Amino acid sequence: MDVDHLRNLLGRVRRGKVTVEKALKELKTLPFEVVDCATIDHHRALRQGAPETIFGEGKTATQVISIMGKIQGKKSNVLVTRLDQKKVPPIRRAFPKIRYYPQSRVLTLLHHPVKIVGRGTILVISAGTSDIPVAEEAIVTAQMMGNRVDHLYDVGVAGIHRLMSQMEILMSAHILIVVAGMEGALPSVVGGLVDHPVIAVPTSVGYGSNFGGITALLAMLNSCASGISVVNIDNGYGAAHAASLMNRL
Amino acid sequence: MDVDHLRNLLGRVRRGKVTVEKALKELKTLPFEVVDCATIDHHRALRQGAPETIFGEGKTATQVISIMGKIQGKKSNVLVTRLDQKKVPPIRRAFPKIRYYPQSRVLTLLHHPVKIVGRGTILVISAGTSDIPVAEEAIVTAQMMGNRVDHLYDVGVAGIHRLMSQMEILMSAHILIVVAGMEGALPSVVGGLVDHPVIAVPTSVGYGSNFGGITALLAMLNSCASGISVVNIDNGYGAAHAASLMNRL
Amino acid sequence: MDVDHLRNLLGRVRRGKVTVEKALKELKTLPFEVVDCATIDHHRALRQGAPETIFGEGKTATQVISIMGKIQGKKSNVLVTRLDQKKVPPIRRAFPKIRYYPQSRVLTLLHHPVKIVGRGTILVISAGTSDIPVAEEAIVTAQMMGNRVDHLYDVGVAGIHRLMSQMEILMSAHILIVVAGMEGALPSVVGGLVDHPVIAVPTSVGYGSNFGGITALLAMLNSCASGISVVNIDNGYGAAHAASLMNRL
Amino acid sequence: MDVDHLRNLLGRVRRGKVTVEKALKELKTLPFEVVDCATIDHHRALRQGAPETIFGEGKTATQVISIMGKIQGKKSNVLVTRLDQKKVPPIRRAFPKIRYYPQSRVLTLLHHPVKIVGRGTILVISAGTSDIPVAEEAIVTAQMMGNRVDHLYDVGVAGIHRLMSQMEILMSAHILIVVAGMEGALPSVVGGLVDHPVIAVPTSVGYGSNFGGITALLAMLNSCASGISVVNIDNGYGAAHAASLMNRL
Amino acid sequence: MDVDHLRNLLGRVRRGKVTVEKALKELKTLPFEVVDCATIDHHRALRQGAPETIFGEGKTATQVISIMGKIQGKKSNVLVTRLDQKKVPPIRRAFPKIRYYPQSRVLTLLHHPVKIVGRGTILVISAGTSDIPVAEEAIVTAQMMGNRVDHLYDVGVAGIHRLMSQMEILMSAHILIVVAGMEGALPSVVGGLVDHPVIAVPTSVGYGSNFGGITALLAMLNSCASGISVVNIDNGYGAAHAASLMNRL
Amino acid sequence: MDVDHLRNLLGRVRRGKVTVEKALKELKTLPFEVVDCATIDHHRALRQGAPETIFGEGKTATQVISIMGKIQGKKSNVLVTRLDQKKVPPIRRAFPKIRYYPQSRVLTLLHHPVKIVGRGTILVISAGTSDIPVAEEAIVTAQMMGNRVDHLYDVGVAGIHRLMSQMEILMSAHILIVVAGMEGALPSVVGGLVDHPVIAVPTSVGYGSNFGGITALLAMLNSCASGISVVNIDNGYGAAHAASLMNRL
Amino acid sequence: MDVDHLRNLLGRVRRGKVTVEKALKELKTLPFEVVDCATIDHHRALRQGAPETIFGEGKTATQVISIMGKIQGKKSNVLVTRLDQKKVPPIRRAFPKIRYYPQSRVLTLLHHPVKIVGRGTILVISAGTSDIPVAEEAIVTAQMMGNRVDHLYDVGVAGIHRLMSQMEILMSAHILIVVAGMEGALPSVVGGLVDHPVIAVPTSVGYGSNFGGITALLAMLNSCASGISVVNIDNGYGAAHAASLMNRL
Amino acid sequence: MDVDHLRNLLGRVRRGKVTVEKALKELKTLPFEVVDCATIDHHRALRQGAPETIFGEGKTATQVISIMGKIQGKKSNVLVTRLDQKKVPPIRRAFPKIRYYPQSRVLTLLHHPVKIVGRGTILVISAGTSDIPVAEEAIVTAQMMGNRVDHLYDVGVAGIHRLMSQMEILMSAHILIVVAGMEGALPSVVGGLVDHPVIAVPTSVGYGSNFGGITALLAMLNSCASGISVVNIDNGYGAAHAASLMNRL
Repeated sequence: MDVDHLRNLLGRVRRGKVTVEKALKELKTLPFEVVDCATIDHHRALRQGAPETIFGEGKTATQVISIMGKIQGKKSNVLVTRLDQKKVPPIRRAFPKIRYYPQSRVLTLLHHPVKIVGRGTILVISAGTSDIPVAEEAIVTAQMMGNRVDHLYDVGVAGIHRLMSQMEILMSAHILIVVAGMEGALPSVVGGLVDHPVIAVPTSVGYGSNFGGITALLAMLNSCASGISVVNIDNGYGAAHAASLMNRL
Repeated sequence: MDVDHLRNLLGRVRRGKVTVEKALKELKTLPFEVVDCATIDHHRALRQGAPETIFGEGKTATQVISIMGKIQGKKSNVLVTRLDQKKVPPIRRAFPKIRYYPQSRVLTLLHHPVKIVGRGTILVISAGTSDIPVAEEAIVTAQMMGNRVDHLYDVGVAGIHRLMSQMEILMSAHILIVVAGMEGALPSVVGGLVDHPVIAVPTSVGYGSNFGGITALLAMLNSCASGISVVNIDNGYGAAHAASLMNRL
Repeated sequence: MDVDHLRNLLGRVRRGKVTVEKALKELKTLPFEVVDCATIDHHRALRQGAPETIFGEGKTATQVISIMGKIQGKKSNVLVTRLDQKKVPPIRRAFPKIRYYPQSRVLTLLHHPVKIVGRGTILVISAGTSDIPVAEEAIVTAQMMGNRVDHLYDVGVAGIHRLMSQMEILMSAHILIVVAGMEGALPSVVGGLVDHPVIAVPTSVGYGSNFGGITALLAMLNSCASGISVVNIDNGYGAAHAASLMNRL
Repeated sequence: MDVDHLRNLLGRVRRGKVTVEKALKELKTLPFEVVDCATIDHHRALRQGAPETIFGEGKTATQVISIMGKIQGKKSNVLVTRLDQKKVPPIRRAFPKIRYYPQSRVLTLLHHPVKIVGRGTILVISAGTSDIPVAEEAIVTAQMMGNRVDHLYDVGVAGIHRLMSQMEILMSAHILIVVAGMEGALPSVVGGLVDHPVIAVPTSVGYGSNFGGITALLAMLNSCASGISVVNIDNGYGAAHAASLMNRL
Repeated sequence: MDVDHLRNLLGRVRRGKVTVEKALKELKTLPFEVVDCATIDHHRALRQGAPETIFGEGKTATQVISIMGKIQGKKSNVLVTRLDQKKVPPIRRAFPKIRYYPQSRVLTLLHHPVKIVGRGTILVISAGTSDIPVAEEAIVTAQMMGNRVDHLYDVGVAGIHRLMSQMEILMSAHILIVVAGMEGALPSVVGGLVDHPVIAVPTSVGYGSNFGGITALLAMLNSCASGISVVNIDNGYGAAHAASLMNRL
Repeated sequence: MDVDHLRNLLGRVRRGKVTVEKALKELKTLPFEVVDCATIDHHRALRQGAPETIFGEGKTATQVISIMGKIQGKKSNVLVTRLDQKKVPPIRRAFPKIRYYPQSRVLTLLHHPVKIVGRGTILVISAGTSDIPVAEEAIVTAQMMGNRVDHLYDVGVAGIHRLMSQMEILMSAHILIVVAGMEGALPSVVGGLVDHPVIAVPTSVGYGSNFGGITALLAMLNSCASGISVVNIDNGYGAAHAASLMNRL
Repeated sequence: MDVDHLRNLLGRVRRGKVTVEKALKELKTLPFEVVDCATIDHHRALRQGAPETIFGEGKTATQVISIMGKIQGKKSNVLVTRLDQKKVPPIRRAFPKIRYYPQSRVLTLLHHPVKIVGRGTILVISAGTSDIPVAEEAIVTAQMMGNRVDHLYDVGVAGIHRLMSQMEILMSAHILIVVAGMEGALPSVVGGLVDHPVIAVPTSVGYGSNFGGITALLAMLNSCASGISVVNIDNGYGAAHAASLMNRL
Repeated sequence: MDVDHLRNLLGRVRRGKVTVEKALKELKTLPFEVVDCATIDHHRALRQGAPETIFGEGKTATQVISIMGKIQGKKSNVLVTRLDQKKVPPIRRAFPKIRYYPQSRVLTLLHHPVKIVGRGTILVISAGTSDIPVAEEAIVTAQMMGNRVDHLYDVGVAGIHRLMSQMEILMSAHILIVVAGMEGALPSVVGGLVDHPVIAVPTSVGYGSNFGGITALLAMLNSCASGISVVNIDNGYGAAHAASLMNRL
């Protein structure tokens, strides 16, 4: 039930076409549908220029194709995350214009060019070569959501001069997404150098007592640099989503 | 906004006292308040004969007295859980009719006798002497919520015959709350003997690798007996609350 | 040794056909067999209309067929849980009337229609698409145990209006099974809305610091809503079994 | 060595007052001091209107007084976090104008009124009464950092209608800090309702398998709502700091 | 119901004094009491020369005195474990003949000399000075249970020669209890040197990543020496109890 | 260097054939070899009738065949544990007399009949069908080490009467090995019924919060029944080894 | 920008060829490049005789070949760690002179003989046969870094005499790397016997509560022998790297 | 039995004063005592200039005084670690020359000046003010063991320029001990800048998900900088001991 429906109902009450008790009964189930409308409304606002997103893990190529088909009607751009490469060929047959990023396992389909709606540049920084897949998921997501995105790769803390020789890029970023595995120290160093929001993304890169990213996650949560917030392990998508919200503020 | 208010508003729309647009605006904030009413309604139904409950931990005696004062107007019975003994004297000065259970640290105040609304008997079973405080919290809570309650103490699995000599009591219970620390095995044995719902309550009783109740909690979640569900460590109150809901089915 | 056997023995003692000492010797091993009888008796009561259940994990198709063959004599319905799809074809050749649910990996075989013995409706709610396999295991189990079952899928807390637009269904349920992975928040919200028992089932859906369902499990155990009890991760069967016991109260 | 110093040095080289080798020697230690300068510069920019912050835990009253004395010369406002109440009287004797918040254990000293530099309102939401200390730490910190701050208390998910009746406040917030203990579900619900950045703060409120806030922390990291980032347990200060950076974007 | 009672009942059935149906009814509750008798019987056998044991933790001096009073009638020796020193004076006033071991917090009361029933010597070995309290609990318990006990203190693996210079004592022990904290390596070395059962007792001695004894516990469970079994952290009593059972084989 | 060698050396010193300094030099490396001898000596004593054991995991069939070849010279019986079935055919071609147990993945080769050296019967009890592989590893190991072995399968605590109807077998066992997964409760019940040593073996059977056997392990370490000691998860071999040592006491 | 460049710039300032402001601008980006230079300088010193190292895990054979090709120009020796055997053949086709160690999965390519730059011998000790792969990674790494390396295999603590019969080798080592899985006790024993630095390497060898090496790691961190430091699980490379740094002191 | 004793024994064998059999018997217990001698010998070598060390935690002032009294005879310097301040006054009355460091809770007593035996300077670096107690324990220990020690405090990674402005001190250190709590990132940065051994010491400084130092410990074990080894949480003493061994190489 949307606002028009509600206005119509009240109008019929006013005109005596509907009794108070009958309207009352209909209104009893109203609340949640009204919420629904409101929510959809503001979501729609958000989605101007933003893609429809499909979480690819655990879905078959057929399922992904089916969902993409439904979206096609709306002419929205499409972003599929965590999609194994072997599922791509059948999808490409159905949607020849797709683009697939094998490292980050992200697939995109543009029905119209992405419109830049973010105010500044989101800078994605990664510590090691193995963190690049997560960084790339963040980059593609942020671009699809209408942001200018830049990146710095392979600037881990064990060779701190590599990071520090890029101060100008660091300083000019609006929001920074810092991706690191192993000891997860990079966000602390970056957070100490810049005055802008830093979103830390731990990755599952490492072995032994790395525990699939827990070490990096804990290190980031306990950072001695203020102003850092953290997302789940390997969650490049979530970091980019959060950064996008910040970039529209 | 309650239902009467809503009926009144619709009545005024009907009578032309309020315009459709003005009603629409008022209705936009309606949903959640209506939920509020609905929720309160069915909560009220639940609370016939049920006590107002105060979580005593971290509250001062003065704070507890203040909340009890507010409740007094409603003439509801009062249940205070996790209340340290040293806070009791000032509360007793304010409310001389209170009853305090030092082992379980539960306090009750009856403005009217508890009305039995549960259909059968809730049986509270505990494994060791040290589990009694948690068992007692469950017993007092269940009684205050309008249930007939029976109990069996000290029937742990290392002396299994003590439990088995009480088969008749086990068999006649409607719902069973089984409280155990250490290895947490008692619910499995009880669950294998009866055909009624068993709620397992792990306690923090034990030492070393007991980990403050984690061992018992995990054992209960992994019980090989079906039909058992589990609540948080030491949560006698929660078990009794769940049992009360079952006993009204 | 069942009760008839015991009565017969006592009769022979009475008639002098058996000496006291010989009866004594026979009775010495009695206790546990009597328990056995008693247990079987009340289990039988439970099982009127209930299926024989086989835990399929780790069993070969041949083993499952063999067990199903033995059950066939009793004319009980059969429920096999956690059965990999690749084991189904040989079972189907042996028992052509089976039905297999690929998502939940449940197999059923009806020798007679399930008789409804539960008093109300069990409502199974799941948060995300990926939780459906566990929800379906709960649904099929509850149906096989003689309950009316309804379900609500995809009503996770991040789109809370989807849940709240279904208040009527929520309110009319006798017992609610709430299945959720990731942050496991759904049972808290449901538990705050209804006055009936809620059984929470954490699922292993998620990644990173989800830890195969531990996060959802812990969240459910620590729910701020009272009246919730919890079963093991992915244990849809156990939740349905517990709900069935409640539904016969 | 700041930029003026460097310009001066180069000027003296140009004018032949300093030899190339001597300048070279001085410049060899330059890099890090220049970083220092740069860092201090942009930090200074941040700190316009921002307080000097002292982490009070583990410091004696005497130590706090000494640090506050040094700050006094700079005429900066002062924020002391995690300061036990018993340390306050001697500090008040030294600095009579201080204000102390006993719940959050925060102390402030204003040498000049806080200037609003944040663009929108930061809304701090807390789930339960016991979460208020952490929420208050976030509120006072955010205010001291030059932000407009609003709050909603006691809107936990087990009574979801309390939250939803405040949709207007939720919708008008620029950035939201959501504080919750126990199952930590509130940020997921809030994140599903709004289109603005949500910073989740787990608290150590709870018992048993709550593990001092780990359950809430994990739940928040695994939230099914996108756009949420997380800070350390009980870290109201950190959340406010991150929110302040976002509010200046 | 003991065996005499049962014989008597059967006799009355035989003599026609009791009907079959009435005997049947009485026998229905028989099983578990019969178990009870059986259990008590063999327990009695065990307890020849063995003490009555009271777990002192969490009990007041008054409670301990009361239990000791009841035991006094049976003339059994008494062993109280984990009893804080401050509770000893009132107990001594009631039972002047007690002996208290402050390090291990064990109290004993001998009504008759302990009779040696174990076949060989139990050797208690401890790694560091801080492990002595747990070792002493094992020693006193084993002595009270009727065993010859010897001990070797301060023979940790970081000074392996201290242990190896005692080979003769090691070789002549019947059963070995090895107590160690920190890295818990001692049982592995001892288990590699002897051909007799080794019971490993981890202690909570250590700091940092020792985790209150978990490190030692895990090390012992993963020992590369075969023939080692393990008890709970700090459980000197349990180790001595297990060793006593072995020593009677 | 064995004792004869040493006696010979001293004889040559005495007879002036070797100088003191040269003997001294030779003796400097003596200690550890002497230990070696001593150790081998008593190990040899243990091994009368005992098999040479090979840990099969991670070894190729070729490696196992090679080791078995070397043992063959000594005419010892051979026990290979944790050997995958696919490695068996080549081994059988080399040693046609082997016997392989597919469930427990144990292989044996008898060069001579096993001589019974244990004094009593070792009883191996397992809770569920899935625990049988570990139980069988314990059984075969104990038999190969010269013990009489009996077993009870499928007597888990959720059907406690099945266990209790076997009291006679329980009571007549010399040492009991109790194998259980899931909640690991069986050793507690058995330990409460018997007066003989109980060795508890947790298995990795279960799912969800079972954590690969951790739940069962913790439950066993925290057993409320005294006299129980525990070995590592799935370590049937270790339990049998420890039981063998006890059975020779 | 290296020192020569900087001297040149200052010279041009002096000679009036460059304005102060222009030099200032160029110097603003100086710091990090200078660090860069410095770092590269001392790294170069380290690398005299040291190999270029490639972490092989997660890289394809093609990627490894490409990196090795770039290194070839510098005529550095090459060390590839954690390289699966199946990737070796194509690499061998490109670089026929490579040597591959299948156990440790290490590959080396010598463009010139390794020059010994370490002062003493690094002794690598391993506890069990299964620890050899990690030990070998340490050995090859240490050799490639210019150290004399010796090793002792299979000297675990459960047969302590095997270790102690090698005292001479132990005593003559300059630095000791001790590799152990399971209970991780070996470094404690070695550390108690020698006066030289001991680097402990836990391995993931074991099962059940070994937790992939955590037990060994914790045991080593909690060693009662002083002077031991620890590296990550299975990190033979890191231990050898640390030992190399020590061996150049 | 030392070497002289052994030579004497062999001499008496040679001279016919002792029979071969008698010497053999005496030699049977030789091995371990010879080890003892050897161990003591090289330990003595280590201890030239090194202090006798007492672990103060859990010892009373009286116990410490008693041990110090025994050491006094040997004229060794004394180092007491982890000694609470309240135990100092009685110790000072017995040994007026002691020096106590309240932050690190270390006590020293010099009977003679410490002789420098280390070859280079040990540099102790700490990240935050709260890490200073652990750093100081390392400093005093290293000095007492005969090393030149320097330190850098408060150079944490969130203000990386503070560290980098001290490159000269970093570069000139022989061995570096890096002490850090919270996210434990500092050793990675230092390890990337220097070519000398780095010993990382995690501290228990922090809160929430810091877990008493586990986060810092894990971060250090997973450092992306090679050449770092780690000691237990808060173990400044152990780090200094390891550094001393390295400094004598």
